[in-house]
Amino acid sequence: MNEPLHAVRALRLSGDGRASHDDRVIVEAPVALLYNGSPFAVMMATPDALEDFALGFAVSEGIVATPDEFRLVDVVRGDDGIALHAAIPQARFDALETRRRGLEGRSGCGLCGVESLQAAMRPVPPVTASTRVTMPQIHAALAALVGQQPLNALSGGVHAAAFASKHGLLVREDVGRHNALDKLIGAMARSEPALRADDGFAVVTSRASYEIVHKAATAGIGVLVAISAPTDLAIRTAQAAGLTLAAFARGDSLNVYSHPDRLESAA
Amino acid sequence: MNEPLHAVRALRLSGDGRASHDDRVIVEAPVALLYNGSPFAVMMATPDALEDFALGFAVSEGIVATPDEFRLVDVVRGDDGIALHAAIPQARFDALETRRRGLEGRSGCGLCGVESLQAAMRPVPPVTASTRVTMPQIHAALAALVGQQPLNALSGGVHAAAFASKHGLLVREDVGRHNALDKLIGAMARSEPALRADDGFAVVTSRASYEIVHKAATAGIGVLVAISAPTDLAIRTAQAAGLTLAAFARGDSLNVYSHPDRLESAA
Repeated sequence: MNEPLHAVRALRLSGDGRASHDDRVIVEAPVALLYNGSPFAVMMATPDALEDFALGFAVSEGIVATPDEFRLVDVVRGDDGIALHAAIPQARFDALETRRRGLEGRSGCGLCGVESLQAAMRPVPPVTASTRVTMPQIHAALAALVGQQPLNALSGGVHAAAFASKHGLLVREDVGRHNALDKLIGAMARSEPALRADDGFAVVTSRASYEIVHKAATAGIGVLVAISAPTDLAIRTAQAAGLTLAAFARGDSLNVYSHPDRLESAA
Repeated sequence: MNEPLHAVRALRLSGDGRASHDDRVIVEAPVALLYNGSPFAVMMATPDALEDFALGFAVSEGIVATPDEFRLVDVVRGDDGIALHAAIPQARFDALETRRRGLEGRSGCGLCGVESLQAAMRPVPPVTASTRVTMPQIHAALAALVGQQPLNALSGGVHAAAFASKHGLLVREDVGRHNALDKLIGAMARSEPALRADDGFAVVTSRASYEIVHKAATAGIGVLVAISAPTDLAIRTAQAAGLTLAAFARGDSLNVYSHPDRLESAA
Protein backbone atom coordinates (compact mmCIF):
# COMPACT_ATOMS: atom_id res chain seq x y z
CA MET A 1 0.00 0.00 0.00
CA ASN A 2 3.05 2.24 0.29
CA GLU A 3 4.57 1.74 -3.13
CA PRO A 4 3.18 2.91 -6.47
CA LEU A 5 4.18 -0.31 -8.25
CA HIS A 6 3.53 -3.92 -7.31
CA ALA A 7 5.32 -7.03 -8.59
CA VAL A 8 3.10 -9.78 -9.96
CA ARG A 9 3.57 -13.02 -11.83
CA ALA A 10 1.99 -13.06 -15.29
CA LEU A 11 1.58 -15.73 -17.93
CA ARG A 12 2.52 -14.47 -21.39
CA LEU A 13 0.61 -16.13 -24.22
CA SER A 14 1.96 -15.44 -27.69
CA GLY A 15 0.92 -17.44 -30.72
CA ASP A 16 1.04 -21.02 -29.45
CA GLY A 17 3.76 -20.25 -26.89
CA ARG A 18 3.46 -19.49 -23.21
CA ALA A 19 5.92 -18.26 -20.59
CA SER A 20 5.60 -17.15 -17.01
CA HIS A 21 7.36 -13.90 -16.15
CA ASP A 22 7.60 -11.17 -13.53
CA ASP A 23 5.59 -8.10 -14.27
CA ARG A 24 5.13 -4.75 -12.54
CA VAL A 25 1.66 -3.27 -12.32
CA ILE A 26 0.44 0.09 -11.10
CA VAL A 27 -1.08 0.20 -7.63
CA GLU A 28 -4.69 1.37 -7.31
CA ALA A 29 -5.76 1.95 -3.71
CA PRO A 30 -8.74 3.56 -1.99
CA VAL A 31 -7.61 6.97 -0.70
CA ALA A 32 -10.00 8.74 1.66
CA LEU A 33 -9.97 12.52 1.94
CA LEU A 34 -11.03 13.92 5.33
CA TYR A 35 -11.40 17.56 6.32
CA ASN A 36 -11.38 18.60 9.96
CA GLY A 37 -11.98 14.95 10.87
CA SER A 38 -14.96 14.50 8.59
CA PRO A 39 -14.78 12.14 5.57
CA PHE A 40 -15.56 13.76 2.23
CA ALA A 41 -14.54 11.38 -0.59
CA VAL A 42 -12.78 8.14 -1.43
CA MET A 43 -10.79 8.13 -4.65
CA MET A 44 -9.08 5.14 -6.27
CA ALA A 45 -5.53 6.45 -6.65
CA THR A 46 -1.88 5.47 -6.88
CA PRO A 47 -0.24 5.92 -3.45
CA ASP A 48 2.49 8.25 -4.65
CA ALA A 49 2.88 12.04 -4.12
CA LEU A 50 -0.03 11.92 -1.69
CA GLU A 51 0.80 15.31 -0.16
CA ASP A 52 0.50 16.83 -3.63
CA PHE A 53 -2.73 14.93 -4.23
CA ALA A 54 -4.35 16.05 -0.98
CA LEU A 55 -3.61 19.72 -1.62
CA GLY A 56 -4.36 19.61 -5.34
CA PHE A 57 -7.75 17.95 -4.83
CA ALA A 58 -8.77 20.59 -2.29
CA VAL A 59 -7.76 23.37 -4.71
CA SER A 60 -9.21 21.87 -7.89
CA GLU A 61 -12.51 21.02 -6.22
CA GLY A 62 -12.81 24.50 -4.73
CA ILE A 63 -12.79 23.16 -1.17
CA VAL A 64 -10.19 25.82 -0.32
CA ALA A 65 -9.79 29.12 -2.17
CA THR A 66 -6.00 29.22 -1.92
CA PRO A 67 -3.33 26.60 -1.08
CA ASP A 68 -2.41 28.37 2.16
CA GLU A 69 -5.86 27.58 3.55
CA PHE A 70 -4.95 23.88 3.44
CA ARG A 71 -2.85 21.89 5.90
CA LEU A 72 -2.25 18.13 5.71
CA VAL A 73 -2.21 16.90 9.29
CA ASP A 74 -1.99 13.11 8.99
CA VAL A 75 -1.58 10.25 6.54
CA VAL A 76 -2.96 6.99 7.93
CA ARG A 77 -2.10 3.83 6.03
CA GLY A 78 -4.17 0.73 6.74
CA ASP A 79 -5.14 -2.55 5.17
CA ASP A 80 -8.25 -1.02 3.62
CA GLY A 81 -6.50 1.98 2.08
CA ILE A 82 -5.03 5.33 2.97
CA ALA A 83 -6.70 8.19 4.82
CA LEU A 84 -5.49 11.75 4.20
CA HIS A 85 -6.51 14.02 7.08
CA ALA A 86 -6.46 17.74 6.38
CA ALA A 87 -7.36 20.89 8.27
CA ILE A 88 -9.22 23.70 6.51
CA PRO A 89 -10.63 27.00 7.85
CA GLN A 90 -13.90 26.68 9.74
CA ALA A 91 -15.74 28.79 7.15
CA ARG A 92 -14.62 26.44 4.33
CA PHE A 93 -15.63 23.44 6.38
CA ASP A 94 -19.05 24.94 7.08
CA ALA A 95 -19.52 25.57 3.34
CA LEU A 96 -18.56 21.97 2.61
CA GLU A 97 -21.01 20.66 5.21
CA THR A 98 -23.81 22.81 3.76
CA ARG A 99 -23.03 21.50 0.27
CA ARG A 100 -22.98 17.97 1.61
CA ARG A 101 -26.27 18.23 3.49
CA GLY A 102 -27.94 19.65 0.40
CA LEU A 103 -26.70 16.75 -1.65
CA GLU A 104 -27.65 14.06 0.84
CA GLY A 105 -31.28 15.02 0.62
CA ARG A 106 -31.23 14.15 -3.03
CA SER A 107 -29.22 10.94 -3.19
CA GLY A 108 -26.52 8.86 -1.58
CA CYS A 109 -24.35 8.26 -4.60
CA GLY A 110 -23.10 10.02 -7.66
CA LEU A 111 -20.35 11.80 -9.42
CA CYS A 112 -17.95 12.53 -6.55
CA GLY A 113 -20.96 13.33 -4.42
CA VAL A 114 -22.62 15.55 -6.96
CA GLU A 115 -26.00 13.97 -6.87
CA SER A 116 -28.38 15.81 -9.11
CA LEU A 117 -28.13 16.83 -12.74
CA GLN A 118 -27.88 20.47 -11.80
CA ALA A 119 -25.30 19.85 -9.12
CA ALA A 120 -23.28 17.79 -11.59
CA MET A 121 -22.74 20.95 -13.61
CA ARG A 122 -21.32 23.18 -10.93
CA PRO A 123 -20.23 26.69 -11.96
CA VAL A 124 -16.68 27.15 -13.16
CA PRO A 125 -14.72 30.26 -12.19
CA PRO A 126 -13.46 32.56 -14.98
CA VAL A 127 -9.85 31.93 -15.99
CA THR A 128 -7.86 35.15 -16.13
CA ALA A 129 -4.35 33.76 -16.67
CA SER A 130 -2.28 35.95 -18.99
CA THR A 131 -0.28 32.94 -20.23
CA ARG A 132 1.11 33.07 -23.78
CA VAL A 133 2.40 29.84 -25.33
CA THR A 134 4.14 29.09 -28.61
CA MET A 135 3.90 25.90 -30.63
CA PRO A 136 7.63 25.11 -30.15
CA GLN A 137 7.10 25.32 -26.38
CA ILE A 138 4.25 22.82 -26.59
CA HIS A 139 6.24 20.48 -28.81
CA ALA A 140 9.20 20.64 -26.44
CA ALA A 141 6.96 19.81 -23.47
CA LEU A 142 5.36 16.87 -25.27
CA ALA A 143 8.77 15.52 -26.24
CA ALA A 144 10.18 15.92 -22.74
CA LEU A 145 7.12 14.35 -21.11
CA VAL A 146 7.73 10.99 -22.81
CA GLY A 147 10.91 10.48 -20.80
CA GLN A 148 9.49 11.68 -17.48
CA GLN A 149 6.83 9.06 -16.79
CA PRO A 150 8.73 6.42 -14.79
CA LEU A 151 5.63 4.65 -13.48
CA ASN A 152 4.11 4.41 -16.93
CA ALA A 153 7.40 3.19 -18.38
CA LEU A 154 7.47 0.31 -15.91
CA SER A 155 3.82 -0.68 -15.79
CA GLY A 156 1.97 0.85 -18.77
CA GLY A 157 -1.41 2.48 -18.69
CA VAL A 158 -0.57 5.23 -16.18
CA HIS A 159 -1.73 8.80 -16.80
CA ALA A 160 0.48 11.85 -16.44
CA ALA A 161 -0.18 15.54 -15.99
CA ALA A 162 2.59 18.09 -16.47
CA PHE A 163 3.16 21.82 -16.12
CA ALA A 164 5.69 23.43 -18.44
CA SER A 165 7.35 26.68 -17.39
CA LYS A 166 10.73 28.36 -17.50
CA HIS A 167 11.60 26.19 -14.49
CA GLY A 168 11.23 23.05 -16.63
CA LEU A 169 8.62 20.33 -16.72
CA LEU A 170 6.85 19.30 -13.51
CA VAL A 171 5.22 15.87 -13.90
CA ARG A 172 2.94 13.74 -11.75
CA GLU A 173 1.53 10.30 -12.51
CA ASP A 174 -1.48 8.33 -11.34
CA VAL A 175 -3.67 5.42 -12.35
CA GLY A 176 -6.47 7.97 -12.64
CA ARG A 177 -6.24 10.93 -14.99
CA HIS A 178 -8.10 13.23 -12.57
CA ASN A 179 -5.75 12.25 -9.80
CA ALA A 180 -2.68 12.96 -11.93
CA LEU A 181 -3.95 16.48 -12.54
CA ASP A 182 -4.77 16.94 -8.85
CA LYS A 183 -1.27 15.82 -7.92
CA LEU A 184 0.16 18.29 -10.42
CA ILE A 185 -1.92 21.18 -9.09
CA GLY A 186 -0.78 20.36 -5.57
CA ALA A 187 2.85 20.02 -6.66
CA MET A 188 2.72 23.42 -8.38
CA ALA A 189 1.66 25.08 -5.15
CA ARG A 190 4.23 23.16 -3.12
CA SER A 191 7.16 23.98 -5.45
CA GLU A 192 9.84 26.39 -4.26
CA PRO A 193 9.09 29.00 -5.48
CA ALA A 194 5.45 28.10 -5.98
CA LEU A 195 4.41 27.84 -9.63
CA ARG A 196 1.51 30.11 -10.52
CA ALA A 197 -0.94 29.31 -13.32
CA ASP A 198 0.45 32.30 -15.25
CA ASP A 199 3.90 30.75 -15.32
CA GLY A 200 3.18 28.17 -18.00
CA PHE A 201 0.75 25.63 -19.38
CA ALA A 202 -0.54 22.17 -18.51
CA VAL A 203 -0.35 18.95 -20.52
CA VAL A 204 -2.38 15.80 -19.84
CA THR A 205 -1.66 12.47 -21.51
CA SER A 206 -5.34 11.60 -21.46
CA ARG A 207 -8.47 12.91 -23.09
CA ALA A 208 -9.94 16.24 -22.00
CA SER A 209 -13.19 15.52 -20.19
CA TYR A 210 -15.49 17.89 -18.35
CA GLU A 211 -13.89 17.06 -15.01
CA ILE A 212 -10.36 17.64 -16.29
CA VAL A 213 -11.24 21.04 -17.74
CA HIS A 214 -13.22 21.98 -14.64
CA LYS A 215 -10.33 21.13 -12.34
CA ALA A 216 -7.80 23.00 -14.50
CA ALA A 217 -10.02 26.09 -14.68
CA THR A 218 -10.68 26.04 -10.94
CA ALA A 219 -6.91 26.00 -10.40
CA GLY A 220 -6.61 29.01 -12.73
CA ILE A 221 -4.69 27.23 -15.50
CA GLY A 222 -4.93 29.23 -18.75
CA VAL A 223 -3.79 26.70 -21.34
CA LEU A 224 -4.59 22.99 -21.19
CA VAL A 225 -3.12 20.65 -23.82
CA ALA A 226 -4.52 17.11 -24.06
CA ILE A 227 -2.83 14.41 -26.07
CA SER A 228 -6.10 12.61 -26.78
CA ALA A 229 -9.63 13.76 -27.71
CA PRO A 230 -11.84 16.35 -26.03
CA THR A 231 -15.51 15.86 -25.16
CA ASP A 232 -18.22 18.32 -26.18
CA LEU A 233 -18.86 19.25 -22.56
CA ALA A 234 -15.16 19.85 -21.96
CA ILE A 235 -15.10 22.23 -24.91
CA ARG A 236 -18.20 24.12 -23.77
CA THR A 237 -16.81 24.34 -20.24
CA ALA A 238 -13.49 25.67 -21.52
CA GLN A 239 -15.25 28.20 -23.76
CA ALA A 240 -17.40 29.40 -20.85
CA ALA A 241 -14.53 29.56 -18.39
CA GLY A 242 -12.09 31.33 -20.69
CA LEU A 243 -9.61 28.46 -20.75
CA THR A 244 -7.58 27.67 -23.86
CA LEU A 245 -8.21 24.01 -24.67
CA ALA A 246 -6.05 22.16 -27.18
CA ALA A 247 -6.35 18.44 -27.89
CA PHE A 248 -5.00 15.73 -30.20
CA ALA A 249 -1.55 17.20 -29.49
CA ARG A 250 0.71 14.79 -31.34
CA GLY A 251 3.84 15.32 -33.37
CA ASP A 252 3.94 18.96 -34.37
CA SER A 253 0.20 19.55 -34.58
CA LEU A 254 -2.83 20.04 -32.36
CA ASN A 255 -6.45 21.20 -32.47
CA VAL A 256 -7.60 24.27 -30.54
CA TYR A 257 -11.22 24.27 -29.37
CA SER A 258 -11.47 27.44 -27.28
CA HIS A 259 -9.74 30.80 -26.77
CA PRO A 260 -6.85 30.39 -29.25
CA ASP A 261 -5.57 33.88 -28.34
CA ARG A 262 -3.15 32.43 -25.78
CA LEU A 263 -1.39 30.39 -28.52
CA GLU A 264 0.99 32.75 -30.23
CA SER A 265 1.29 31.02 -33.58
CA ALA A 266 -2.50 31.24 -33.82
CA ALA A 267 -2.37 35.03 -33.71
CA MET B 1 -28.27 16.00 -25.71
CA ASN B 2 -29.88 13.32 -27.90
CA GLU B 3 -26.98 12.52 -30.18
CA PRO B 4 -23.71 10.80 -29.24
CA LEU B 5 -21.62 13.11 -31.44
CA HIS B 6 -21.54 16.88 -31.63
CA ALA B 7 -20.16 19.06 -34.45
CA VAL B 8 -17.67 21.73 -33.40
CA ARG B 9 -15.35 24.14 -35.14
CA ALA B 10 -11.66 23.55 -34.39
CA LEU B 11 -8.48 25.40 -35.27
CA ARG B 12 -5.79 23.06 -36.52
CA LEU B 13 -2.23 24.23 -35.78
CA SER B 14 0.51 22.34 -37.57
CA GLY B 15 4.06 23.60 -37.79
CA ASP B 16 3.58 27.26 -38.64
CA GLY B 17 0.30 26.67 -40.45
CA ARG B 18 -3.23 27.03 -39.21
CA ALA B 19 -6.61 26.07 -40.63
CA SER B 20 -10.13 26.11 -39.26
CA HIS B 21 -12.13 22.92 -39.81
CA ASP B 22 -15.25 21.06 -38.75
CA ASP B 23 -14.67 18.42 -36.14
CA ARG B 24 -16.89 15.88 -34.45
CA VAL B 25 -16.49 15.30 -30.72
CA ILE B 26 -18.02 12.75 -28.40
CA VAL B 27 -20.90 13.95 -26.23
CA GLU B 28 -20.48 13.72 -22.44
CA ALA B 29 -23.70 14.41 -20.55
CA PRO B 30 -24.87 14.02 -16.96
CA VAL B 31 -27.12 10.95 -16.80
CA ALA B 32 -29.07 10.46 -13.59
CA LEU B 33 -30.18 6.99 -12.50
CA LEU B 34 -33.37 6.85 -10.42
CA TYR B 35 -34.98 3.80 -8.88
CA ASN B 36 -38.65 3.84 -7.86
CA GLY B 37 -38.55 7.63 -8.11
CA SER B 38 -35.49 8.08 -5.91
CA PRO B 39 -32.20 9.39 -7.38
CA PHE B 40 -29.21 7.12 -6.88
CA ALA B 41 -26.33 8.34 -9.06
CA VAL B 42 -25.31 10.78 -11.78
CA MET B 43 -22.81 9.47 -14.31
CA MET B 44 -21.08 11.43 -17.07
CA ALA B 45 -21.96 9.33 -20.10
CA THR B 46 -22.52 9.39 -23.85
CA PRO B 47 -26.28 9.57 -24.55
CA ASP B 48 -26.39 6.46 -26.73
CA ALA B 49 -27.82 2.99 -25.94
CA LEU B 50 -29.30 4.39 -22.74
CA GLU B 51 -31.68 1.46 -22.27
CA ASP B 52 -28.68 -0.85 -22.27
CA PHE B 53 -26.83 1.46 -19.90
CA ALA B 54 -29.68 1.67 -17.40
CA LEU B 55 -30.09 -2.10 -17.20
CA GLY B 56 -26.36 -2.86 -17.28
CA PHE B 57 -25.58 -0.44 -14.46
CA ALA B 58 -28.26 -1.99 -12.25
CA VAL B 59 -26.88 -5.48 -12.91
CA SER B 60 -23.16 -4.64 -12.64
CA GLU B 61 -23.67 -2.67 -9.43
CA GLY B 62 -25.74 -5.45 -7.86
CA ILE B 63 -28.80 -3.22 -7.54
CA VAL B 64 -30.86 -6.02 -9.06
CA ALA B 65 -29.96 -9.72 -8.89
CA THR B 66 -31.23 -10.55 -12.38
CA PRO B 67 -32.16 -8.46 -15.44
CA ASP B 68 -35.84 -9.41 -15.15
CA GLU B 69 -36.04 -7.56 -11.84
CA PHE B 70 -35.39 -4.31 -13.75
CA ARG B 71 -37.83 -2.23 -15.79
CA LEU B 72 -36.99 1.12 -17.42
CA VAL B 73 -40.11 3.26 -17.06
CA ASP B 74 -39.07 6.67 -18.40
CA VAL B 75 -36.23 8.57 -20.08
CA VAL B 76 -36.46 12.32 -19.40
CA ARG B 77 -34.21 14.56 -21.48
CA GLY B 78 -33.65 18.10 -20.25
CA ASP B 79 -31.21 20.95 -20.57
CA ASP B 80 -29.28 19.76 -17.54
CA GLY B 81 -28.95 16.17 -18.69
CA ILE B 82 -30.90 12.94 -18.94
CA ALA B 83 -32.81 11.14 -16.19
CA LEU B 84 -33.33 7.37 -16.45
CA HIS B 85 -36.24 6.27 -14.29
CA ALA B 86 -36.39 2.58 -13.45
CA ALA B 87 -38.62 0.35 -11.34
CA ILE B 88 -37.08 -2.38 -9.17
CA PRO B 89 -38.67 -4.77 -6.65
CA GLN B 90 -39.49 -3.24 -3.29
CA ALA B 91 -37.03 -5.54 -1.51
CA ARG B 92 -34.19 -4.37 -3.78
CA PHE B 93 -35.17 -0.77 -3.25
CA ASP B 94 -35.23 -1.24 0.51
CA ALA B 95 -31.75 -2.77 0.37
CA LEU B 96 -30.54 0.19 -1.67
CA GLU B 97 -32.04 2.65 0.80
CA THR B 98 -30.40 0.84 3.72
CA ARG B 99 -27.05 0.92 1.94
CA ARG B 100 -27.54 4.61 1.15
CA ARG B 101 -28.50 5.59 4.72
CA GLY B 102 -25.48 3.74 6.05
CA LEU B 103 -23.24 5.62 3.67
CA GLU B 104 -24.76 9.04 4.30
CA GLY B 105 -23.79 8.84 7.94
CA ARG B 106 -20.18 8.68 6.91
CA SER B 107 -19.89 11.18 4.09
CA GLY B 108 -21.70 12.91 1.27
CA CYS B 109 -19.26 12.25 -1.51
CA GLY B 110 -17.08 9.52 -2.82
CA LEU B 111 -16.54 6.76 -5.28
CA CYS B 112 -20.03 6.39 -6.75
CA GLY B 113 -21.41 6.89 -3.26
CA VAL B 114 -19.07 4.44 -1.62
CA GLU B 115 -17.91 6.63 1.16
CA SER B 116 -15.54 4.84 3.42
CA LEU B 117 -12.44 2.83 2.73
CA GLN B 118 -14.16 -0.40 3.70
CA ALA B 119 -17.24 0.38 1.66
CA ALA B 120 -15.02 1.18 -1.33
CA MET B 121 -13.95 -2.44 -1.36
CA ARG B 122 -17.34 -4.11 -1.52
CA PRO B 123 -17.42 -7.91 -1.77
CA VAL B 124 -17.33 -9.43 -5.22
CA PRO B 125 -19.45 -12.49 -6.00
CA PRO B 126 -17.68 -15.69 -7.11
CA VAL B 127 -17.57 -16.16 -10.87
CA THR B 128 -18.66 -19.66 -11.89
CA ALA B 129 -18.80 -19.24 -15.68
CA SER B 130 -17.66 -22.40 -17.49
CA THR B 131 -16.38 -20.36 -20.45
CA ARG B 132 -13.45 -21.76 -22.44
CA VAL B 133 -11.65 -19.46 -24.86
CA THR B 134 -8.88 -20.06 -27.40
CA MET B 135 -6.24 -17.59 -28.47
CA PRO B 136 -7.51 -17.51 -32.08
CA GLN B 137 -10.96 -16.54 -30.75
CA ILE B 138 -9.45 -13.65 -28.82
CA HIS B 139 -7.39 -12.50 -31.79
CA ALA B 140 -10.44 -12.63 -34.04
CA ALA B 141 -12.45 -10.55 -31.57
CA LEU B 142 -9.68 -7.95 -31.25
CA ALA B 143 -9.39 -7.70 -35.04
CA ALA B 144 -13.15 -7.39 -35.52
CA LEU B 145 -13.52 -4.81 -32.75
CA VAL B 146 -11.35 -2.30 -34.62
CA GLY B 147 -13.99 -1.92 -37.32
CA GLN B 148 -16.98 -1.83 -34.98
CA GLN B 149 -16.35 1.41 -33.07
CA PRO B 150 -18.16 4.02 -35.17
CA LEU B 151 -18.18 6.72 -32.47
CA ASN B 152 -14.47 6.30 -31.84
CA ALA B 153 -13.74 6.33 -35.56
CA LEU B 154 -15.46 9.70 -35.93
CA SER B 155 -14.36 11.45 -32.73
CA GLY B 156 -11.40 9.59 -31.18
CA GLY B 157 -10.95 8.82 -27.55
CA VAL B 158 -14.10 6.75 -27.05
CA HIS B 159 -13.98 3.50 -25.11
CA ALA B 160 -15.57 0.27 -26.26
CA ALA B 161 -16.61 -2.92 -24.52
CA ALA B 162 -17.46 -6.04 -26.51
CA PHE B 163 -18.76 -9.56 -25.93
CA ALA B 164 -17.62 -12.26 -28.34
CA SER B 165 -19.75 -15.36 -28.78
CA LYS B 166 -20.92 -17.71 -31.51
CA HIS B 167 -23.50 -15.02 -32.29
CA GLY B 168 -20.71 -12.61 -33.27
CA LEU B 169 -19.33 -9.51 -31.59
CA LEU B 170 -21.66 -7.29 -29.57
CA VAL B 171 -20.10 -3.83 -29.08
CA ARG B 172 -21.05 -0.76 -27.06
CA GLU B 173 -19.21 2.58 -26.86
CA ASP B 174 -19.07 5.40 -24.34
CA VAL B 175 -16.90 8.31 -23.31
CA GLY B 176 -16.43 6.44 -20.01
CA ARG B 177 -14.93 2.97 -19.91
CA HIS B 178 -17.19 1.89 -17.03
CA ASN B 179 -20.23 3.07 -18.94
CA ALA B 180 -19.19 1.16 -22.07
CA LEU B 181 -19.04 -2.03 -20.01
CA ASP B 182 -22.39 -1.27 -18.36
CA LYS B 183 -23.98 -0.72 -21.78
CA LEU B 184 -22.53 -4.03 -22.94
CA ILE B 185 -23.85 -5.91 -19.91
CA GLY B 186 -27.29 -4.40 -20.49
CA ALA B 187 -27.15 -5.18 -24.21
CA MET B 188 -26.24 -8.81 -23.50
CA ALA B 189 -29.36 -9.24 -21.37
CA ARG B 190 -31.54 -7.44 -23.91
CA SER B 191 -30.31 -9.49 -26.91
CA GLU B 192 -32.68 -11.99 -28.51
CA PRO B 193 -31.90 -14.60 -27.33
CA ALA B 194 -30.24 -13.11 -24.24
CA LEU B 195 -26.48 -13.67 -24.10
CA ARG B 196 -25.35 -15.41 -20.93
CA ALA B 197 -21.89 -14.90 -19.44
CA ASP B 198 -21.12 -18.54 -20.30
CA ASP B 199 -21.65 -17.87 -23.99
CA GLY B 200 -18.37 -16.03 -24.59
CA PHE B 201 -15.88 -13.51 -23.29
CA ALA B 202 -15.60 -9.74 -22.86
CA VAL B 203 -13.06 -7.34 -24.34
CA VAL B 204 -12.47 -3.76 -23.17
CA THR B 205 -10.37 -1.27 -25.12
CA SER B 206 -9.23 0.36 -21.90
CA ARG B 207 -7.16 -0.64 -18.93
CA ALA B 208 -8.48 -3.15 -16.41
CA SER B 209 -9.16 -1.27 -13.19
CA TYR B 210 -10.79 -2.46 -9.99
CA GLU B 211 -14.18 -1.11 -11.04
CA ILE B 212 -14.04 -2.77 -14.45
CA VAL B 213 -13.19 -6.17 -12.97
CA HIS B 214 -15.77 -5.75 -10.22
CA LYS B 215 -18.54 -4.94 -12.70
CA ALA B 216 -17.58 -7.85 -14.98
CA ALA B 217 -17.48 -10.30 -12.08
CA THR B 218 -20.80 -9.08 -10.71
CA ALA B 219 -22.31 -9.71 -14.15
CA GLY B 220 -20.87 -13.24 -14.07
CA ILE B 221 -18.41 -12.76 -16.94
CA GLY B 222 -15.73 -15.48 -16.82
CA VAL B 223 -13.04 -14.08 -19.13
CA LEU B 224 -12.18 -10.38 -19.38
CA VAL B 225 -9.58 -9.24 -21.94
CA ALA B 226 -8.22 -5.69 -21.66
CA ILE B 227 -6.20 -4.09 -24.42
CA SER B 228 -4.25 -1.91 -21.99
CA ALA B 229 -2.69 -2.48 -18.56
CA PRO B 230 -4.23 -3.95 -15.41
CA THR B 231 -3.95 -2.46 -11.93
CA ASP B 232 -2.80 -4.45 -8.91
CA LEU B 233 -6.23 -4.18 -7.32
CA ALA B 234 -7.92 -5.36 -10.50
CA ILE B 235 -5.67 -8.44 -10.49
CA ARG B 236 -6.33 -9.20 -6.82
CA THR B 237 -10.06 -8.74 -7.33
CA ALA B 238 -10.03 -11.06 -10.35
CA GLN B 239 -8.01 -13.66 -8.45
CA ALA B 240 -10.41 -13.53 -5.50
CA ALA B 241 -13.54 -13.61 -7.65
CA GLY B 242 -12.42 -16.45 -9.91
CA LEU B 243 -12.42 -14.31 -13.05
CA THR B 244 -9.86 -14.86 -15.81
CA LEU B 245 -8.14 -11.53 -16.41
CA ALA B 246 -5.98 -10.96 -19.47
CA ALA B 247 -4.42 -7.60 -20.38
CA PHE B 248 -2.03 -6.02 -22.87
CA ALA B 249 -3.94 -7.94 -25.55
CA ARG B 250 -2.28 -6.68 -28.71
CA GLY B 251 -1.35 -8.42 -31.92
CA ASP B 252 -1.22 -12.13 -31.20
CA SER B 253 -0.14 -11.94 -27.57
CA LEU B 254 -1.51 -11.12 -24.14
CA ASN B 255 -0.68 -11.46 -20.45
CA VAL B 256 -2.86 -13.54 -18.11
CA TYR B 257 -2.99 -12.43 -14.48
CA SER B 258 -5.58 -14.76 -12.93
CA HIS B 259 -7.23 -18.14 -13.51
CA PRO B 260 -5.60 -19.06 -16.84
CA ASP B 261 -7.54 -22.36 -16.88
CA ARG B 262 -10.28 -20.81 -19.04
CA LEU B 263 -7.75 -20.04 -21.80
CA GLU B 264 -7.32 -23.24 -23.75
CA SER B 265 -3.86 -22.63 -25.18
CA ALA B 266 -2.69 -22.09 -21.61
CA ALA B 267 -3.67 -25.65 -20.63
